[in-house]
Amino acid sequence: MIAEVVSVGSELLAGQIANTNARYISEALAGVGVPVMLQTAVGDDVGQIERVLRAALGRADVVVVCGGLGPTHDDLTREAVSAATGRLLERDAGLVAGLERRFARMGRTMSPSNRQQADVPAGAVSIDNPVGTAPGIFLEDEGRLVYVLPGVPDEMEAMMRGFVLPDLSVRTGGSAIVTRTLRTAGIPESDLADRLAGVIGPNVGVYASEGEVRVCLTAPASDAGGLPGLEREVRTRLGSLVYGEGDTTLERVVSGLLRQRGLRLAVAESLTGGMLASRIVGVPGASDIFVAGYVAYSARAKIRDLGVPPDVIERHGLVSTETAVAMALGARARAEADVALSTTGEAGPSPAEAAVGRVCVGLSWEGGDAAWTFGMGGGREMIRRRTCTYALNRLRLWLLGDPGLG
Amino acid sequence: MIAEVVSVGSELLAGQIANTNARYISEALAGVGVPVMLQTAVGDDVGQIERVLRAALGRADVVVVCGGLGPTHDDLTREAVSAATGRLLERDAGLVAGLERRFARMGRTMSPSNRQQADVPAGAVSIDNPVGTAPGIFLEDEGRLVYVLPGVPDEMEAMMRGFVLPDLSVRTGGSAIVTRTLRTAGIPESDLADRLAGVIGPNVGVYASEGEVRVCLTAPASDAGGLPGLEREVRTRLGSLVYGEGDTTLERVVSGLLRQRGLRLAVAESLTGGMLASRIVGVPGASDIFVAGYVAYSARAKIRDLGVPPDVIERHGLVSTETAVAMALGARARAEADVALSTTGEAGPSPAEAAVGRVCVGLSWEGGDAAWTFGMGGGREMIRRRTCTYALNRLRLWLLGDPGLG
Repeated sequence: MIAEVVSVGSELLAGQIANTNARYISEALAGVGVPVMLQTAVGDDVGQIERVLRAALGRADVVVVCGGLGPTHDDLTREAVSAATGRLLERDAGLVAGLERRFARMGRTMSPSNRQQADVPAGAVSIDNPVGTAPGIFLEDEGRLVYVLPGVPDEMEAMMRGFVLPDLSVRTGGSAIVTRTLRTAGIPESDLADRLAGVIGPNVGVYASEGEVRVCLTAPASDAGGLPGLEREVRTRLGSLVYGEGDTTLERVVSGLLRQRGLRLAVAESLTGGMLASRIVGVPGASDIFVAGYVAYSARAKIRDLGVPPDVIERHGLVSTETAVAMALGARARAEADVALSTTGEAGPSPAEAAVGRVCVGLSWEGGDAAWTFGMGGGREMIRRRTCTYALNRLRLWLLGDPGLG
Repeated sequence: MIAEVVSVGSELLAGQIANTNARYISEALAGVGVPVMLQTAVGDDVGQIERVLRAALGRADVVVVCGGLGPTHDDLTREAVSAATGRLLERDAGLVAGLERRFARMGRTMSPSNRQQADVPAGAVSIDNPVGTAPGIFLEDEGRLVYVLPGVPDEMEAMMRGFVLPDLSVRTGGSAIVTRTLRTAGIPESDLADRLAGVIGPNVGVYASEGEVRVCLTAPASDAGGLPGLEREVRTRLGSLVYGEGDTTLERVVSGLLRQRGLRLAVAESLTGGMLASRIVGVPGASDIFVAGYVAYSARAKIRDLGVPPDVIERHGLVSTETAVAMALGARARAEADVALSTTGEAGPSPAEAAVGRVCVGLSWEGGDAAWTFGMGGGREMIRRRTCTYALNRLRLWLLGDPGLG
């Protein structure tokens, strides 16, 4: 089975947003053995959408359409699917009732334009939307499978996971492309590529983003016998640089290690300004392992809220390993936590350009502390995100008992 | 003139990367008055690329092709352009000499595969690549303009700026598309669409994301006379729902208002867990208006760090307007701030599903306080993000002196 992805939205053609939905859908389809042959983005024009859909239905076995299912006048995907397949739109009474219940629960009145979200082409099945109001649409048309999903990423992803992928997995008998992703932190892409020289090739790719590098191993299921050996080789060469697999995250791994060891964490943040706490709190069950966070952006807040001695700041500066350690120590004491992680640094755009990207991370635990200083490029947002990744990775290595720690 | 963008690369179809090049090219073309009607992504398959190019040349006046110009055997765009236009590839001696000089400068030997980067279709002109080795290709084919650029973003962007955009500006006489984006918060997309009934149409579109809705006004420069009137109408109907224009953000607007009024902010966060502070600290110059943030995730942290009276939590619960106000009051006092904003709520996935998405926001200032409670759908991350947007918007309205405030 071969798929095409059709994204609908004039904002894509105007270049106001990148087509991240097509990326998500394509990766997910590949994961269940349905490779994507073409991605198309088309504007909010019913004739254009219809033309693109007809062409896709003429070439592919599976067409995933994304966007244009909302309640406004420029949401035209329903009409276009109807026209391209010659199936009239019918209002689904069950869907109307479901929408009414949903609006009642939220204490909102349902507008007439919401009601048209219950229109589906004749013979189609609606796909439940667990996180929004626009239902999706599934229909089989002359042997072609058509899945129509909303363009809001959360809603689209929930329907891919909840309906499209399980449905396709059953149909393909699970004959997937086998993909295995190893996630690393703490090493630049080019250094990692050097470590994997001779291994990187048609089955092994390396992709960098925001201070992390992913190693992807890929093969068709029929030819996946070599993957375990390749994975062993990659793991041997990379050691503890690999922090996890699949779609896990560094904060999820760190949360798991803290839970395993029965430790509770506090964080003290300057330049990351809450982002580090937010990443940790984003993992379900955070209350088991996270105690408190302090965003101490000014020197005064560092002294008042974290008890950093003024003379440490005076002698070593706000961006110093000494201040980072004092911040971590203060956060741990105040929050009555077992371990505390801190960040301080200069994210720019001011002051002196030379200082921008210099960052210190501190760690304090019962009986010891450690700190690291490093530099990086990128804009304000990128520096803050990379600092969080760096800090989380340092905490991970400490939790693993990295012998490199003092 | 109407354009299409064709992106070449199997990594796009595998979903390994998002098609950010198509976004850049589309936005840039719109800026010189050449709207994009279709974006297509195709894999490294010479037959498929040729087919897509033929179709694009049959519909558009301008085709920008991106990717597949490198030196490896899966770089097939040259061959496909040659096949689609019936123009044989010819080796350009001048380009070979240029490549040789470039390699000599870098102290590297030129491989035979690099040499084939000097192949161009008959009658085509090469486009200088100031930042890499792969030259671009420009050709006029039966009245169609074809620009072929490398897929490396830096190289593509340099050639867009250096060649494609100046060339097209001359041809269109500089007739740009005029776009104006109004950003709103505090109203769902469908309600906003109802308020704009009769205005939404070919020149006015509405796009929702993460608790915000953007209203985009668009027209070709030659026909932009009506936009100011449309914008006035939209602003009249939406009033203070419009928080800004263009690519500003809610946190940027709130930071500006705080600065104007000489007020300094503290935040106290439960379910948002640092995300609210992080959004504010993300705006350059945050130290002028932001004092401190407290992530008090547990009841104990709320009592200890924010001085929330235990009996308030006992009587009203952790997710209550009373607790939200006490958190804000405590943060303001501890941080010696002028105003403090707080969030508390249930982001899921546990406990009782009914409670998930119930959120309270509190505000405390010298002489008063206020709190709001509301519900929303979505996953954990989405609920947290929407709560931040809701809270920032409440603070904005207070800073504007919204008369609805107690």
